Amino acid sequence: MTPTEPSTEITRLREKGSVDRVALDELLDTTRIGHFGLVDAASGAPVVIPTAVVRDGDRVLAHGSTGSRWMRALAAGARTCLSVTADDGVVVARSAFESSLHYRSAVLFGSCTTLPAEEREHALDVITDGLIPGRVAELRRPSKSELAATLVLALPIERWSLKISHNWPEDIDDDIDGPAWAGVVPRVLGYGTPLPAPDLRAGIETPESVRRL
Amino acid sequence: MTPTEPSTEITRLREKGSVDRVALDELLDTTRIGHFGLVDAASGAPVVIPTAVVRDGDRVLAHGSTGSRWMRALAAGARTCLSVTADDGVVVARSAFESSLHYRSAVLFGSCTTLPAEEREHALDVITDGLIPGRVAELRRPSKSELAATLVLALPIERWSLKISHNWPEDIDDDIDGPAWAGVVPRVLGYGTPLPAPDLRAGIETPESVRRL
Repeated sequence: MTPTEPSTEITRLREKGSVDRVALDELLDTTRIGHFGLVDAASGAPVVIPTAVVRDGDRVLAHGSTGSRWMRALAAGARTCLSVTADDGVVVARSAFESSLHYRSAVLFGSCTTLPAEEREHALDVITDGLIPGRVAELRRPSKSELAATLVLALPIERWSLKISHNWPEDIDDDIDGPAWAGVVPRVLGYGTPLPAPDLRAGIETPESVRRL
Repeated sequence: MTPTEPSTEITRLREKGSVDRVALDELLDTTRIGHFGLVDAASGAPVVIPTAVVRDGDRVLAHGSTGSRWMRALAAGARTCLSVTADDGVVVARSAFESSLHYRSAVLFGSCTTLPAEEREHALDVITDGLIPGRVAELRRPSKSELAATLVLALPIERWSLKISHNWPEDIDDDIDGPAWAGVVPRVLGYGTPLPAPDLRAGIETPESVRRL
């Protein structure tokens, strides 16, 4: 898999990659976990933070606890690089060298902002419905203390690059003439049977949002 | 999802997380894509690189092109943080606040070494068989020029932390008494039907390694 690129080279990378905003949105809308990179101010060491991400128009939202050091660093405007990657399958080539993965990989560069209290409730609805579509309508509203304990970060979709690798194996002629098989095995991602919580009260049906997953 | 932690706080984090090396190995052995963080020496900006990772005993291997700038930076010993995350399901709680993901998240800190030519061929076998078990035995050996064009990085499994979040929803009593459903919806990850390459010669059967995926 080819690495993502730094802020100064986005233009060059875009030429190699995709400038398709629709494809970017599709990746962001179907991939639940993103990896934020930042630099530890104290030590200068790189840190990578996996977290759930949900797109909200022209920004990516993430949320976390106000007690989390790295979330607070991101909230304070630390420079960041968000990587969102989908593993779409395996390219089974006729040589190890040409074997690879089918993937889509987006990188967004910038700094997060923290949403003020009055925007946080709506943003949390977007995040909840992003992870479990339709769930917000089935739930009570968040309490004030819940909203106070939650940090919501927004990263603008402004500086980004997208690479999509969905090719067939590109074997050399000698290998194509050889005995080895070649093709692609797609990844399939889905949900299993919902498991009710041990403390679920009798008579509560599996809701529509969960059945739809 | 709770963030991963910096090198200076691993001890503290381990108390919260898991020190189970078996669980770490299981995560590394079943998750194909890892995210390497590093700091761009020129700009000081964080960069996150997704790439296929395969465990080889007490180290994690990754490979890439010698033409890749970030791979070369990692190969030159840049401090790095490797994050490997498995998305195991959705925790559907009775409130948005308690809703979350089932996940396993490992972070490894350190610096990569580059494998010398004489170790590279074996390491590439490990990577290929890690991604497609049994495939090496079905393929020709790599050529010298293929080996020369490939960079193999090894990150020692020395400083690491692991967090596993596989809990049931932890709702407050008022919500448990309320009307909302709660439970967990597991993620299911698999492979679809293998797709033969358009240039596959007639009469070549789908190999054992691919059928086993």
